[in-house]
Order: sequence, then C-alpha cells, then structure tokens
Amino acid sequence: MKNKAVIILSGGMDSTTLLYDIVNQGYKVFPLSFNYGQKHKRELECAKETCKRLNLEHKILDLSILGDIAPSALTRSKWEVPEGHYADENMKQTVVPNRNMVMLSLATTYAIGIGARDVFYGAHSGDHTIYPDCRPEFVNAMKKVISLSDWNKVNLHAPYLKLDKGDIVKRGIKLGVDYSLTWTCYKGEELACGKCGSCVERIEAFKKAGIKDPIKYQEVK
Amino acid sequence: MKNKAVIILSGGMDSTTLLYDIVNQGYKVFPLSFNYGQKHKRELECAKETCKRLNLEHKILDLSILGDIAPSALTRSKWEVPEGHYADENMKQTVVPNRNMVMLSLATTYAIGIGARDVFYGAHSGDHTIYPDCRPEFVNAMKKVISLSDWNKVNLHAPYLKLDKGDIVKRGIKLGVDYSLTWTCYKGEELACGKCGSCVERIEAFKKAGIKDPIKYQEVK
Repeated sequence: MKNKAVIILSGGMDSTTLLYDIVNQGYKVFPLSFNYGQKHKRELECAKETCKRLNLEHKILDLSILGDIAPSALTRSKWEVPEGHYADENMKQTVVPNRNMVMLSLATTYAIGIGARDVFYGAHSGDHTIYPDCRPEFVNAMKKVISLSDWNKVNLHAPYLKLDKGDIVKRGIKLGVDYSLTWTCYKGEELACGKCGSCVERIEAFKKAGIKDPIKYQEVK
Repeated sequence: MKNKAVIILSGGMDSTTLLYDIVNQGYKVFPLSFNYGQKHKRELECAKETCKRLNLEHKILDLSILGDIAPSALTRSKWEVPEGHYADENMKQTVVPNRNMVMLSLATTYAIGIGARDVFYGAHSGDHTIYPDCRPEFVNAMKKVISLSDWNKVNLHAPYLKLDKGDIVKRGIKLGVDYSLTWTCYKGEELACGKCGSCVERIEAFKKAGIKDPIKYQEVK
C-alpha cells in the first residue's frame, strides 16, 4: 500500500511542481488548499484543475479568519499590491503574518486525521529574503515541532528549500507539469499583470530555465 | 505604555487564571478564543463574561474547519465523551489532533498584526499524559518556531507548564479569579457532568487546593 502524504497546494508553480514530484515518487497524495481571502483566488481554480487532472481528492479549507486578523496587501482591498522586484523592501507588504505556520499546522491536523505521516510544502530559496516563514531556520524549527505534534512522528518535508524557481521549472518540465494551470500573479485580474514581484520572479524563472511560459500577461516585460 | 500580549483563552480554569495573572503583571491583554465545534461551547460564554468583567477586547475566531478535519470525541456528535480519570487511556479520544499548534499559530498571526510580541497559553503538567501538544518538548519546540515567525522575535510563554491544576486554583484565588465563570466539563449539558475526565480533574484540583468549587454538578463524586 502506498504511503499517504498531505501537501499544501497553493496552485502556484512551486507547490504544483512538488505535487507532481511526490505523486511520481509513489505517495498517495492528499492536496490541501486554503481560501484565506487572497486577491489572487485564481490560484485555487488552478489547484482544483490540476487535482482533477491527476485524479486526486482535493480539499479546500476556508481560512478567511487569516485574512481578517492579518493585515497584508494580499488580502486587504485598500492596500495596493506593490510592483517591482520580488526581493524589494516594499514586497514585505505582501507578507501575511505567520501564514505558513497556520497552514502547516492545519495540514498536520489533516494528516493525523487521515493517518498520513508526511506533510509537504514548496518553500524555496527565492522566498527567504521577504518571508520570515520560508527561512531554513523556520522550516527546521517547524519540522521539529510537527514531529512532536502527535504520539507518532509526523514528518515535514520542504525539498525545494535550496532550489530557486528556475530549478523548479526545469524539474517540473521533466515531470510533465502543465504550467498553464499554475497562477502566480498577486493581483486578482483576468491576466497576470507582469509587474508585481511575484510575476517578475516567474518571468525570470522561465527565462533562466530557457522555457517559454505558457500563460499570457497583460504586458510582458 | 503597557506591553501588549495575546492569550489563548478557552474559558476553562487554567487559561482564565493565566489571564488574571498577566493582567496583574501589567500587560495590555488581548484574549483570543476559538469556536472549533467543541460540544462544550459554554466555555466560550464564560470566556466572554470574564473579559467583560476585566474590560478587555475579546476576539472569538470561527475555527470550525478544525472540527471538520479532525476527528475527536470533543467535536463529533457520534462519539461519546468518555468518563473516568483524566489520565486514562480512553481520554485520548478527546485529543483534537494538533489543536494547540493551530491555535498558537493563529494567536501569533493576531499578535504580529496588533504589534504584540508576547503570546501566552495555559498548558499545565496534568495535560502531559494525554495531549502530545502539551508536553514540555512540544512547548519548547513551539517557542522556537514562534520566535522565528516574524522578522522581530515573538515570545511564547507557558508559565503553568510545571504547575498542576491544584496549584493553579490556589494561585487564581489569590488573584481574585471568579471560578464560577469557568467551564471545564467536556459534555455540552446545562450542568457539569462530574464524571468525564475533565470534571474529575477539576474536582480533584479544588479538593487539593482546599477550596470549594463554586459551580454545580449533576452528580458530585
């Protein structure tokens, strides 16, 4: 019998690639997504579509309380999503305080409930400068606490922690990921803006990987 | 100016005592409670009443997703709340998987959002045998990861970790806690049952402290 695993699936490039990766490794995967009031809800549609294609049971949890208690440009209509490079100081406005710990803790609850001992998430090296909860020291501390959350050990895996987004795309292409079903832009518009830090990083990643990005942009930089 | 602090307030004896304790220590306290589908919702009414009395801004978050994804005798109507001693094996049915990590992570989000650097919760020594997420090693790992959750350090405090419930009552009486406004029974009935592990532990605690429990029971053991 296959080992069960839970993955936090945002519907972005990194978690979608990781999903393909662990399905390919033979896990019976239970993808978990969160609706936390993010403006870019289109990522959830992508997550849903990918799970349908892979024939996986997809759970979307309503985490609107996170948007309620946590001020961020990703969830508050009055805050503009900043434009510019991903590593710029103003991108810190897009931090949803402690979002990853909240999501990982619920993923762990879900895992214990269904008898899975492995939880995956797609933190990668490009996140470190902006998001405190993507730092290797955070991930390591999270591994420790998750391992103690139940009487039987639960394992947290963040296998892309040392990869950058370009490496991830290259890996995903080999795994057969359809990147037209991933959403990266932080703005909630029909087409990706091409200007927010998140778009800029995606565009750089495809350029670095030497692969054409299959999605359309309002304005290609 | 007073330092802000967030406390997880269940409305039970331990967290209510801790609330009085930190108000007494001079913090500007923001109590946070969770409605996670627990049968014993009366604890939330107690929490509300205590906050009103102390003139504190009380936040109750809807965490019904926790009840949805986590099987437990506390949240599922088909499971009976077990009777007997708190440390008995069958009390493990009352574990809501990873509940404390979920609540602490949201408390940390709330703290960062309002500019508080301190988060309190009332884990105590009697919890260790049943609840993996009350063990000292869990609490220490949680302290570490919470300290890394933001660019500025957030401190988790569990000052009752080495106290038992009898010690806590003695302390609370000195602090002026009104224990008629605390709810302990795991069953959702009009009067406390006096038979579930949680009631048994409360009764023992008051006996040990040599103080009369102000609440009424269906049947006093």
